[in-house]
Amino acid sequence: MVKRLIEEIKKKNAPVVAGLDPVLGYVPEYIQKKAFKEHGETLEGAAEAVWQFNKGIIDAIYDLVPAVKPQIAMYEQFGVPGIAVFKKTIDYCKEKGLVVIGDVKRGDIGSTSAAYATGHLGSVKVGSTECPAFNEDFITVNPYLGSDGINPFLDICNKENKGIFILVKTSNPSSGEFQDKEFEGVPLYELVARKVAEWGTGCMDGSYSNVGCVIGATYPGMGKALRKILPHNYILVPGYGAQGGTAKDLKPYFNEDGLGAIVNSSRGIIAAYKQEKYQKYGEQGFAEASRQAVIDMVKDINSIL
Amino acid sequence: MVKRLIEEIKKKNAPVVAGLDPVLGYVPEYIQKKAFKEHGETLEGAAEAVWQFNKGIIDAIYDLVPAVKPQIAMYEQFGVPGIAVFKKTIDYCKEKGLVVIGDVKRGDIGSTSAAYATGHLGSVKVGSTECPAFNEDFITVNPYLGSDGINPFLDICNKENKGIFILVKTSNPSSGEFQDKEFEGVPLYELVARKVAEWGTGCMDGSYSNVGCVIGATYPGMGKALRKILPHNYILVPGYGAQGGTAKDLKPYFNEDGLGAIVNSSRGIIAAYKQEKYQKYGEQGFAEASRQAVIDMVKDINSIL
Repeated sequence: MVKRLIEEIKKKNAPVVAGLDPVLGYVPEYIQKKAFKEHGETLEGAAEAVWQFNKGIIDAIYDLVPAVKPQIAMYEQFGVPGIAVFKKTIDYCKEKGLVVIGDVKRGDIGSTSAAYATGHLGSVKVGSTECPAFNEDFITVNPYLGSDGINPFLDICNKENKGIFILVKTSNPSSGEFQDKEFEGVPLYELVARKVAEWGTGCMDGSYSNVGCVIGATYPGMGKALRKILPHNYILVPGYGAQGGTAKDLKPYFNEDGLGAIVNSSRGIIAAYKQEKYQKYGEQGFAEASRQAVIDMVKDINSIL
Repeated sequence: MVKRLIEEIKKKNAPVVAGLDPVLGYVPEYIQKKAFKEHGETLEGAAEAVWQFNKGIIDAIYDLVPAVKPQIAMYEQFGVPGIAVFKKTIDYCKEKGLVVIGDVKRGDIGSTSAAYATGHLGSVKVGSTECPAFNEDFITVNPYLGSDGINPFLDICNKENKGIFILVKTSNPSSGEFQDKEFEGVPLYELVARKVAEWGTGCMDGSYSNVGCVIGATYPGMGKALRKILPHNYILVPGYGAQGGTAKDLKPYFNEDGLGAIVNSSRGIIAAYKQEKYQKYGEQGFAEASRQAVIDMVKDINSIL
């Protein structure tokens, strides 16, 4: 699957992923009002508003970006109707030829991770029928439980040609609280990175592995060190834009071939119309504002490659 | 909420939680066949089979246990229909007076954790209406992202009188891979435990905190050490029975007052009819077998208190 991701990145000349992380506050009022009129101020109403918002953005940007990353928490907050829109969003993005990275950060003991792997990347057997459930192309995974929590994901990656991104160093301010603790001089995030490299060797797909990792944009120094430990693993980089990372910071995350990393922006793209820079588009032009924000971001990222 | 949990434990004289982690292999064939006849070999069919299975077990054990712990992965594997049955199971258990611990192991950066906290423990604002989504009483939380990934859960615990159990030391064989790594002589799980104690002080509910932790049954030595670090935090203990923990191992997890821990069994209860010990109940008697397994487990656990 990473081979396909790379093809799409090259085709669109954009090592960029759009984070589809809708909170209701980002959804233009006129869309919310219409949805609430039809479904009431209910979870269904909220989910419908999110769906219309997503659809507008996807239609406006699908020809520019290789991939999208819906953050499941933003859908889960709206309960079952929210999860239904998470699935609808995945299906619609795949119809549009986009690679879908489910940002789910799942991870548990072996048998439970197997259920997550099945539900998000594989198919569950019902009677004698194989039924795919969410069917993302990639998902993000939490490593806290160690190898036997990761192995079921590796199995599915190989069986179904799917991929995962394992959390190594996250972009939030307190990520260092545990991740930076040093064990015989080696920080935890580096111990995890070494394991990611090891796990990844069994899941090669061309010159990169289907096992990638997540490293926040806000640590260019760490990015450089980790790039060396993980030469064949794609880095999914959150934290660009709204969270403070700049294009200049991102150079160390890429390999010499200009590949090896894909940079996410969520708020910066989907809520672009709320920024002063894109104010002229107004609420009605929210999708066009997102399109312009993608164009600007791709230009910014490519300027360092 | 921990006060309510303790009341229920005392009332039923059972520091025990039943893990509702259904895989299709546990569901008696006659239930599967009926569900597939109505809904086909589809995700809907699988979800309906799981629901009928859960309902049978809940009806048979709700007067014996204070709490249930549905593992969301087992529902998520069946996609949107599976998640709908997760919600239906929560609602049904609450109707029956059970405390519901959603085993979701969520955890992310601050704004994303806030969405998980809202969706599982709080209410999301839709227009001017507060809408609860999954509405569990407790959930499990992954600490890898540090304080700002935990704080939104603490806020909701206080606002809504709900609770969380934070992963400290999990019951799986490779849990030590990262969790046991020592930083200046202190293992990571203990660093996390110290943080749990700190986070918990702001969320007291009677003599215990609404912030508890997860420590696997398979490490009595660690249980003893961690009990001292966490005198006011409830310990949710997985790994009893099927995963190898015995009642004798569990003594150190409890405080002198006989409180402070609640022991989970999943397979050992819900798939009891598949064990030689409860064979006489047969498939048709699966729920009665579960009831007997609960009675035996409660007796076993109480024998050490």
